[in-house]
Amino acid sequence: MAPWMLPLFLTLVFLQYSPSSCAKFQPRYFPSSIIHTKLQSLPSNNKLYKTRYFTQILDHFNYNPQSYQTFQQRYLINNTFWGGPKINAPIFVYTGNEGNIEWFAQNTGFMYDIAPEFKALLVFIEHRFYGKSIPYGGDKKKAYKNSKSLGYLSSTQALADYATLIVDLKNNLTAMDSPVIVFGGSYGGMLAAWFRLKYPHVAIGALASSSPILQFENITSQYSFNNIITQDFRSESENCYKVIKGSWDEIKEAGRTNRGLELLRKSFHICENYISGGYVEGWVSEALIYTAMTDYPTPSNFLSPMPAYPVKQMCKAIDNPKLGNNTFAKLYDAANIYYNYTGNVSCFNLLDNSDPHDLGGWQWQACTEMVMPTDGNNKESIFPASTYSYTGRAQYCEAYYKVQPRPTWITTEFGGHDITRVLKRFGSNIIFFNGLRDPWSGGGVLKNISKSIIAIVEKEGAHHVDLRFSTNEDPEWLRDVRKREISIMKGWISEYYQDMVDSHAY
Amino acid sequence: MAPWMLPLFLTLVFLQYSPSSCAKFQPRYFPSSIIHTKLQSLPSNNKLYKTRYFTQILDHFNYNPQSYQTFQQRYLINNTFWGGPKINAPIFVYTGNEGNIEWFAQNTGFMYDIAPEFKALLVFIEHRFYGKSIPYGGDKKKAYKNSKSLGYLSSTQALADYATLIVDLKNNLTAMDSPVIVFGGSYGGMLAAWFRLKYPHVAIGALASSSPILQFENITSQYSFNNIITQDFRSESENCYKVIKGSWDEIKEAGRTNRGLELLRKSFHICENYISGGYVEGWVSEALIYTAMTDYPTPSNFLSPMPAYPVKQMCKAIDNPKLGNNTFAKLYDAANIYYNYTGNVSCFNLLDNSDPHDLGGWQWQACTEMVMPTDGNNKESIFPASTYSYTGRAQYCEAYYKVQPRPTWITTEFGGHDITRVLKRFGSNIIFFNGLRDPWSGGGVLKNISKSIIAIVEKEGAHHVDLRFSTNEDPEWLRDVRKREISIMKGWISEYYQDMVDSHAY
Repeated sequence: MAPWMLPLFLTLVFLQYSPSSCAKFQPRYFPSSIIHTKLQSLPSNNKLYKTRYFTQILDHFNYNPQSYQTFQQRYLINNTFWGGPKINAPIFVYTGNEGNIEWFAQNTGFMYDIAPEFKALLVFIEHRFYGKSIPYGGDKKKAYKNSKSLGYLSSTQALADYATLIVDLKNNLTAMDSPVIVFGGSYGGMLAAWFRLKYPHVAIGALASSSPILQFENITSQYSFNNIITQDFRSESENCYKVIKGSWDEIKEAGRTNRGLELLRKSFHICENYISGGYVEGWVSEALIYTAMTDYPTPSNFLSPMPAYPVKQMCKAIDNPKLGNNTFAKLYDAANIYYNYTGNVSCFNLLDNSDPHDLGGWQWQACTEMVMPTDGNNKESIFPASTYSYTGRAQYCEAYYKVQPRPTWITTEFGGHDITRVLKRFGSNIIFFNGLRDPWSGGGVLKNISKSIIAIVEKEGAHHVDLRFSTNEDPEWLRDVRKREISIMKGWISEYYQDMVDSHAY
Repeated sequence: MAPWMLPLFLTLVFLQYSPSSCAKFQPRYFPSSIIHTKLQSLPSNNKLYKTRYFTQILDHFNYNPQSYQTFQQRYLINNTFWGGPKINAPIFVYTGNEGNIEWFAQNTGFMYDIAPEFKALLVFIEHRFYGKSIPYGGDKKKAYKNSKSLGYLSSTQALADYATLIVDLKNNLTAMDSPVIVFGGSYGGMLAAWFRLKYPHVAIGALASSSPILQFENITSQYSFNNIITQDFRSESENCYKVIKGSWDEIKEAGRTNRGLELLRKSFHICENYISGGYVEGWVSEALIYTAMTDYPTPSNFLSPMPAYPVKQMCKAIDNPKLGNNTFAKLYDAANIYYNYTGNVSCFNLLDNSDPHDLGGWQWQACTEMVMPTDGNNKESIFPASTYSYTGRAQYCEAYYKVQPRPTWITTEFGGHDITRVLKRFGSNIIFFNGLRDPWSGGGVLKNISKSIIAIVEKEGAHHVDLRFSTNEDPEWLRDVRKREISIMKGWISEYYQDMVDSHAY
């Protein structure tokens, strides 16, 4: 079993630590590449969803013959709890992000948990170019062949897909008056927020969880992401922070000699016979980043299980070393919290290239519009100091895809600058949830914008923790977050029903 | 001199009257093909604008190599009145519609009239594929060659052009904090309203004049357009309405024999030696439609001059015939109000194909997304009874462009159904002006939606009369409309400035 998801991520995160490389590509702009949790609390006798396909248009914004091509877009549907069109019962739609939609559906238990209370229909729509929703007749090789075929993979097309599919679905269900609320986490949360802003006639509100819509251009500091990770570990113990911060030089030093590399291989139980120091740095930092992002308050099932509060557990492993008092032993023990909590893995395959959740398309998105500067590390950072390089990104994308990023497009299309001023008097019904232990939270909306564009901020929270299935062990603050979200959404829906009554009386 | 503008219009309007034709294509979905007024009150010593070009991207929503092609987009700019970036003086942007932007600039005197008071910069942006803003290196033949090249002519691309250009312009002027208000009439007004809804971070408000954003699908009755024209003439005199309504059979009857055709030729002073009855019907109905649309309260300069209240004048010509008491003489006299008010034209060339304002691209837009059913005529209509045929449109578009319309796209992308309910709690700062004598007003927003999404409705008004240069003869109601618009826009701007102060104090 591969303990990580992104083949590209591995390649790229290592480049970051290779001084000779100019392509400082990081994993962090794969916002939700870490939602590896598996279904926790769904009753085993309940089928989560039925799978359907919608004939979707390839290009919504142009009218040349190519744009009329279609593809089969997958969506998952569960009508178990739906009150039906006669009572205009609501429809909850998950705006799928960069991966297999089944994986997101299985990990967005909140929608299942609250569906009965709302009598809601549940729909999870897969993002084009991911999972089974592949243009070019479903032929992934063709779709991912080059920039010509990949060109149709963009956020605006995805949003238009969702609008088109939802309108069609509502017509087919004769549920035109059923209110739709969109849900999403991470990039899916960005899409949910943008969907409410761009398609208010299709969705009455959005729950955008951990959606770093302000992590573009210079709106959010490039140091924010790694500062939060730093703070996560440092808040556990100063020693933990110092050991990790000091480790990079030791790994680099070891990587310079064969003896040192052999020491790394043994210390970190690496399967491969030869590995560079950079790979080890990447492997360790991936564990730190993703553990910070998913520092959940309850045990969670990733691909391998994780304990509650895994950052605390990592620091415990470092502060109270069981395997030896040297840095590598401490680090290895800590990394095991993320990679091997059950202890089943005997050696780690750092060159594993598998991508079981089909996240590979994100790299294209990061090379075109999702230019989110998160790579900066100031001198206090738990990682080696570095600055974000747009040029590096552009060179990488040119070499890899022959494509130039459009780094200002997202703010041109969706805004971001002065967001409070802009949305204070425009738009409504969006919840931005952020947990402050999530490194992406720095790029999120952290203050209320208006009476109905609400920021819910929880200092103990991690990456879209609110969207997970509830458990009996959930702490009070998490229950409170969800209660608040439910209460706000109920308000949207009852206001919508009241407006319907009023408009008919009118 | 050609008394009409649209070669396609002529072809198409005639098809309507040809019973053997299934393509009932009408001119009415060229919403603003009638803004033929010329500059009236601008001081002759003042240059209206400077011409500039912006390197615009061909495709904003895709990332294939083709989408990275660029073209030179023309815009006109006048900084005579601008207060400059230091005081964050406002920027007024006209979102160009389907024609040469110089023509729109010259006919949107309202922006010039109010610029000094607002210390506003004036910018008029040309719509892609019109005027000089032609992709494919400015080569119009290439750009209009087929559906492959024309594919990039769409409203969403145009809106993204405007956003991109405005953001770049503001950066270049270091005027990032200058508030932008967008203006537009007819299709340009639709674009202005949609721009505010889709790009609230770029424009703080929109004055959308005579913008029939509800003339899609079944939101507005297909009979509305011609009912309003009917009412315009009928309100002048019942006899006028009856004479016109009765004329179609007479024309048709005359068209059946050579003698009848010769009578038509002579009666209507047609230059061509042979013409079918259908052409005469089209020629007369064009005069009626466009005179209704531009039934302004002051003399206006079209390509040829028009008197104040031209509908009234037409009915006078019919009710008090000077040239003879037969129907054709009456109709000819009435048509002269529209086609030949100065009396300089000795004969009319019905086959003239010239398109001086470069409006031809609208047909492509009407064949793809601008599917606006206005062709219905009920039995009370001043025109012969008919019903709108989507199939007819689709067949025409297939034959002419090999393209299929997407008749539900506009409402999917921009909304329209239940607009009051949707925008009551979403969005702000839009003025929808409509004059009820304008046949397009039936598809407009005629009721206030919220405190800041305002409908200004004037029963005496015609197509975007508010946007015209003011004159000393303007009636009180027109002055009042403009005063109200100015007052509302002042409110937006002062609120914006106050919000800036508040956000800095924050």
